[in-house]
Amino acid sequence: MQRYEHGGNIYGGEKIKLDFSVNTNPMGLPECVKIALRSDECIYTRYPDAQCRALRTAIGCYHDVRDDQVLCGNGAADMIFRLCAWKKAKRILLPAPTFSEYERSVKVFGGEIREYKLSPENGFLITGEFADHISKDTDMVFLCNPNNPTGQLVPEDIMDDILERCRELGALLMVDECFIEFTEGRSLVKKLNEYPNLLILRAFTKLYAMAGLRLGYMLGAASVLEQISVYGAEWSVSGPAQAAGIAALKSEPEWTQRSRSLTARERSFMTEELVEMGITVFPSAANFMLLKSNLPLHEELKKRGIYTRSCGNFSGLDERYIRIALRSREDNEMLLNAIRGIVYG
Amino acid sequence: MQRYEHGGNIYGGEKIKLDFSVNTNPMGLPECVKIALRSDECIYTRYPDAQCRALRTAIGCYHDVRDDQVLCGNGAADMIFRLCAWKKAKRILLPAPTFSEYERSVKVFGGEIREYKLSPENGFLITGEFADHISKDTDMVFLCNPNNPTGQLVPEDIMDDILERCRELGALLMVDECFIEFTEGRSLVKKLNEYPNLLILRAFTKLYAMAGLRLGYMLGAASVLEQISVYGAEWSVSGPAQAAGIAALKSEPEWTQRSRSLTARERSFMTEELVEMGITVFPSAANFMLLKSNLPLHEELKKRGIYTRSCGNFSGLDERYIRIALRSREDNEMLLNAIRGIVYG
Repeated sequence: MQRYEHGGNIYGGEKIKLDFSVNTNPMGLPECVKIALRSDECIYTRYPDAQCRALRTAIGCYHDVRDDQVLCGNGAADMIFRLCAWKKAKRILLPAPTFSEYERSVKVFGGEIREYKLSPENGFLITGEFADHISKDTDMVFLCNPNNPTGQLVPEDIMDDILERCRELGALLMVDECFIEFTEGRSLVKKLNEYPNLLILRAFTKLYAMAGLRLGYMLGAASVLEQISVYGAEWSVSGPAQAAGIAALKSEPEWTQRSRSLTARERSFMTEELVEMGITVFPSAANFMLLKSNLPLHEELKKRGIYTRSCGNFSGLDERYIRIALRSREDNEMLLNAIRGIVYG
Repeated sequence: MQRYEHGGNIYGGEKIKLDFSVNTNPMGLPECVKIALRSDECIYTRYPDAQCRALRTAIGCYHDVRDDQVLCGNGAADMIFRLCAWKKAKRILLPAPTFSEYERSVKVFGGEIREYKLSPENGFLITGEFADHISKDTDMVFLCNPNNPTGQLVPEDIMDDILERCRELGALLMVDECFIEFTEGRSLVKKLNEYPNLLILRAFTKLYAMAGLRLGYMLGAASVLEQISVYGAEWSVSGPAQAAGIAALKSEPEWTQRSRSLTARERSFMTEELVEMGITVFPSAANFMLLKSNLPLHEELKKRGIYTRSCGNFSGLDERYIRIALRSREDNEMLLNAIRGIVYG
């Protein structure tokens, strides 16, 4: 399963001081989530609400959609897996590189991936050609917006073309917006009622630094979500995850705004510093950046106790690429100093 | 989905003072679990170990099996679901009544259930005939030991016959031992190496009162578990669940012994009191009991703020049956008083 290994796999025994391989919010858990996690022991001992009623209401309010347009799961990965278990799609189009869980889940259920190769020449931006690759026999299209690990948003006019083309040809379109709150990009939530073949994937993992708690959700047509929901076990969203999700939304909209500013500030700072060292930095709208260098950055940084995401196992990338998360200024400076040591040392 | 509704569904809006519909340990969370849940924030913020290495080692030690004979999941329900997703069994034999998640999961993947009806005349005990119903075209057999909602253990000689017959005919045998630690019954863990077609289901849910945390696991042949593991999403066991599981096992063997004594004591006490009121109490080895009465006990108790498990949606039972958990003496006495009010009032 080497091909599908992710960032954040810090359990192998190495000593890691700083983990830049994981793209979670450097602000950590919102204070109200910490309080929710310790205020009521029942969230740990009682069976959780299998239907996540209170949580779905909170998410529905946040996005201004109906409760039945929300389906919650055990992290975004669980939602991707259930979608594939239900749809059993045969022909799936996705860009490369992109998040590897789409491919892994699709293949478990016998689907065949068609990759649209993004090009380093234009910074891995999705171009208008992508829509042309959606054909009559495409069952499902996966798009990650902003894309992981490249960080680029899908241009709005191109996204509109893709939406139209998918609807016209009857393909299901799954747009993963797990990182969109860190960007200034446009969410497709407002398009849900217009496009019943659209599913939007979201998670609490990144924005609220809740990777350990596992909480993701899908927005879409109630009739589709009802069918997908059958492909999950009972009580799949834990009590602490439900309580934390409800609490996290109470920190809005301030939390998202602060996260976005911090990200934008650190992104320009890091880009400037890294470019000065001769490292290729691909344009990113997200809270992480894709770098390219002929130096063995991943291995050398690991020796110094700093973990980055080696991108050798992404289709379309190779060992020269690494992905780094944007963290606090202090952490980012430690990373820069370590890279300086490698570049100039 | 009325047919598959469970106990513990307390989120419908009614005011519940006491919940006897859920069979979790009345002793609550072990102290060491509480400590583990508040001692390291990283369990909530970091990605959990997708392979649950430390937890599987702890479980392996506890059962004296190898790490690769353990597969962890998001509660026992997740393990049942993944097993069915992988096996896609066509013909499945199970007793009736039994835990409804087996049937639900089997049907999602197109399997056909053959029920072996247990009889109230012998207290719903599994008899030797069950093994005769395992035939050449049986793909999978589910057994719950002790059975839920009836509470009876499978007699050892009958279990041995079933094991032999399943091996002989090439049927997969899944034995759910989620409640066995509350009983004096024999676990099949020692039989794992002898029967590669045997899978044992366990959970932390009941014994350690961790229903909200979601943690279950399967024991079996490494080669089978590896195939089942593919049918789950990445990071399916949360950080808090992994930490809690590791901590819970540190409370052993004292925790299990205390739970077992408390259960045995309350079981005799409740049986005696209920029988005196003219209620039929079926023999149970577990931490719950099946009762039968022509009085509308479930509805009347609910009016008094006490929730029991109405068994009307179990195949082979009807509205006259209810299941009650054994709780603390204080709680149990409150239940008895309420029932007295209904019987004599």
